[in-house]
Amino acid sequence: MTQIIKAKKGIITDEMKLVAAEEKLSADAICQGVAEGKIVILYNLLHSNSKPVGVGQGLRTKVNANIGTSAHCSGIAEELKKLKVSIEAGADAVMDLSTGGDLNSIRKKIMQESTVPVGTVPIYQAAIEAERSSGSTGDMTEDLIFEAIEKHLKDGVDFITVHCGINFETIGKLKKNPRIMDVVSRGGALLIDWIIKNKKENPLYENYDRLLVLAKKYDAVLSLGDGMRPGAIADATDPAQIQELIVLGQLAKRANEKGVQAMIEGPGHVPLKEIEANIKLEKELCHGAPFYVLGPLPTDVAPGYDHITSAIGGAIAGGAGADFLCYVTPSEHLGLPSLDDVSQGVIASRIAAHAADIAKGIPGAAEWDRKMSLARKKLDWERQIKLSIDPKRARKLHEANKKGDTDVCSMCGEYCSMKVMNRVMEELSPEGRG
Amino acid sequence: MTQIIKAKKGIITDEMKLVAAEEKLSADAICQGVAEGKIVILYNLLHSNSKPVGVGQGLRTKVNANIGTSAHCSGIAEELKKLKVSIEAGADAVMDLSTGGDLNSIRKKIMQESTVPVGTVPIYQAAIEAERSSGSTGDMTEDLIFEAIEKHLKDGVDFITVHCGINFETIGKLKKNPRIMDVVSRGGALLIDWIIKNKKENPLYENYDRLLVLAKKYDAVLSLGDGMRPGAIADATDPAQIQELIVLGQLAKRANEKGVQAMIEGPGHVPLKEIEANIKLEKELCHGAPFYVLGPLPTDVAPGYDHITSAIGGAIAGGAGADFLCYVTPSEHLGLPSLDDVSQGVIASRIAAHAADIAKGIPGAAEWDRKMSLARKKLDWERQIKLSIDPKRARKLHEANKKGDTDVCSMCGEYCSMKVMNRVMEELSPEGRG
Repeated sequence: MTQIIKAKKGIITDEMKLVAAEEKLSADAICQGVAEGKIVILYNLLHSNSKPVGVGQGLRTKVNANIGTSAHCSGIAEELKKLKVSIEAGADAVMDLSTGGDLNSIRKKIMQESTVPVGTVPIYQAAIEAERSSGSTGDMTEDLIFEAIEKHLKDGVDFITVHCGINFETIGKLKKNPRIMDVVSRGGALLIDWIIKNKKENPLYENYDRLLVLAKKYDAVLSLGDGMRPGAIADATDPAQIQELIVLGQLAKRANEKGVQAMIEGPGHVPLKEIEANIKLEKELCHGAPFYVLGPLPTDVAPGYDHITSAIGGAIAGGAGADFLCYVTPSEHLGLPSLDDVSQGVIASRIAAHAADIAKGIPGAAEWDRKMSLARKKLDWERQIKLSIDPKRARKLHEANKKGDTDVCSMCGEYCSMKVMNRVMEELSPEGRG
Repeated sequence: MTQIIKAKKGIITDEMKLVAAEEKLSADAICQGVAEGKIVILYNLLHSNSKPVGVGQGLRTKVNANIGTSAHCSGIAEELKKLKVSIEAGADAVMDLSTGGDLNSIRKKIMQESTVPVGTVPIYQAAIEAERSSGSTGDMTEDLIFEAIEKHLKDGVDFITVHCGINFETIGKLKKNPRIMDVVSRGGALLIDWIIKNKKENPLYENYDRLLVLAKKYDAVLSLGDGMRPGAIADATDPAQIQELIVLGQLAKRANEKGVQAMIEGPGHVPLKEIEANIKLEKELCHGAPFYVLGPLPTDVAPGYDHITSAIGGAIAGGAGADFLCYVTPSEHLGLPSLDDVSQGVIASRIAAHAADIAKGIPGAAEWDRKMSLARKKLDWERQIKLSIDPKRARKLHEANKKGDTDVCSMCGEYCSMKVMNRVMEELSPEGRG
């Protein structure tokens, strides 16, 4: 029995208890959220060294880091370092998006070493295997796709991206409503290519029940992929994107009914003023299913800084109800990220997630800020550094220009407003003369 | 006659024409905005090597970079390098906030070399001079304050921060409504200290007309400082902050009536959900005067990354109508920024400002993104790099992992969705088989 099947029966599992403790909520609340499909628990029983992570309504906004090889950079050693850096920087989950080298062996190593839930996109492997054997990704068969999925789930993968919303109807919407960037989802593009070439419906849509049987067997969470996500702000919130979202909402419902947990993937590139509407739309069309967004990026012009662009969009999305932020690194749109990019990407997303959590009123979120502000007021630098989202970096910058043993920083020196005000406020107190 | 006096008479100045050309708007529109106090033109006639920059309703959101020495880091050479870096990174204005070394000579050098408008906070100089001569900032006299102001304006300073809203009434609100961080504005803290010590009203408030005479003489823009800006999200939107904003609104009106241009400075640290309200409040209480915000930072816990935190808040503020973003660097709350911090800070604010400009519908803003997306679709890397907000950095990251002569990047290699879709879309076209 999966988490959602048990939840519907009112059975509180150990995983729900662990999530509840982590979130400072009652296990009953977690159980109810899972039963309603508004919370998913990322936890494949075969992924023994990971702990269950909850994603969804009322929970802390989570952050995912994408790692993995590419044809140009296929070193597993480097990707394992990225895994370590991601977890150290505070990622709640990672996705192995490898497309280069020995995919099975890379995935197995990442699964072994990851102490956080791992997600994958099995269609990449199916496409690459087809290409390696016959020379064309379009030659992948339905069985090859489902074999890749089961291979991943057997390895303990906790959630899989499946682009089930790409079908004749959504492709029709794309055809009738031209975009600048067409389709920027790799999985989406591969499947559209396959559908056109084979003149057949998307197997992940057509044979969705086959997918549900597999997901149920391993209690893996389906991350219903947005193959039609906009890749340019000019393309956002268009008929192809919304048509796919409607399909994904229906598929999430079918998953829940069959005892399978599901979340929805979202954009992408979205102008500032459309972000909140995108979140509300997902929550309505997908019956409150957790929303896992990539960005969104409110401008297209900042390659090299898209972790910042993404933090802007992610904070707004999170504040409006998005549950899970996929990080974007400074190298997005330019190349595979470096180790430093990975760290920067995770921290930027965590800042966005935390700003959102304060807006959402997540228990304990604003308390962190309160503690930091109290430490600042006291000029207690050790405590400020300890409370920082990245203590190492905070210490480095603080000590960069510091002169000797002083309680003030190099910005204001003795003109420190805290120092002035700590003296003044004594005088302003009832006993003071102010 | 100042810009606003002429504007009220319907006289279109050369400065209005230059601003109009820069903003792709009519000179009439600029003239009307200036007349109504909704647009200010940063341009002191004595600052000969700078060009006029418009700030306000309907105009591109501007970015300011703070530079200047501190007691711990008093090298003018380094600050002149920061000026250069700020302008190269695209800052629309800089503020010289020097508090260390020979303040007059530093300011004169910055004025000489700056091709963008320069702002200052003359109260720093008055306080430092008082301390240097008598040992206490509290000993500054009213004359010393106004002499410092005129010295700055004579040097060609285009806008000055004056904390005129700090008075007995706002201090009373602070006293009755305790905060965690009290007052984090240096100028605000110095003035409150002075008021308590001297048991006298703030000269900048009490003798505001004396200030207006000076500002009018040089047509400098008054940047009405928010001495009560919150320095912790827990302190945001409280009685002291709002009381000060009410006062600033009244003072802006008085300035406009006397032929002086004014803008309003704003927070600071503000939770995500309160940012939009803060902007709307300023626009109402201050009769549409341009709003110049510092951040706002929607969380206190990210020292080392506050350029990112600030970009989140700045984008939301800008989207809601803020006109001018003061950058925040990665070193904020930790120390004086390095050259690299300055560059990072400007770019982060420019991303926020541009995302806001798209939301505001500023002419030409979304067109930049459209061009970038078209270049991306064509895999035209040279054009993508050229269109990037920071071409040097984009090139560096793109070339980091690039393998040989290829049209794809190291992220996806040949599985590039653009490449797949460019082929597929041909087949999807009316002539194609899709």
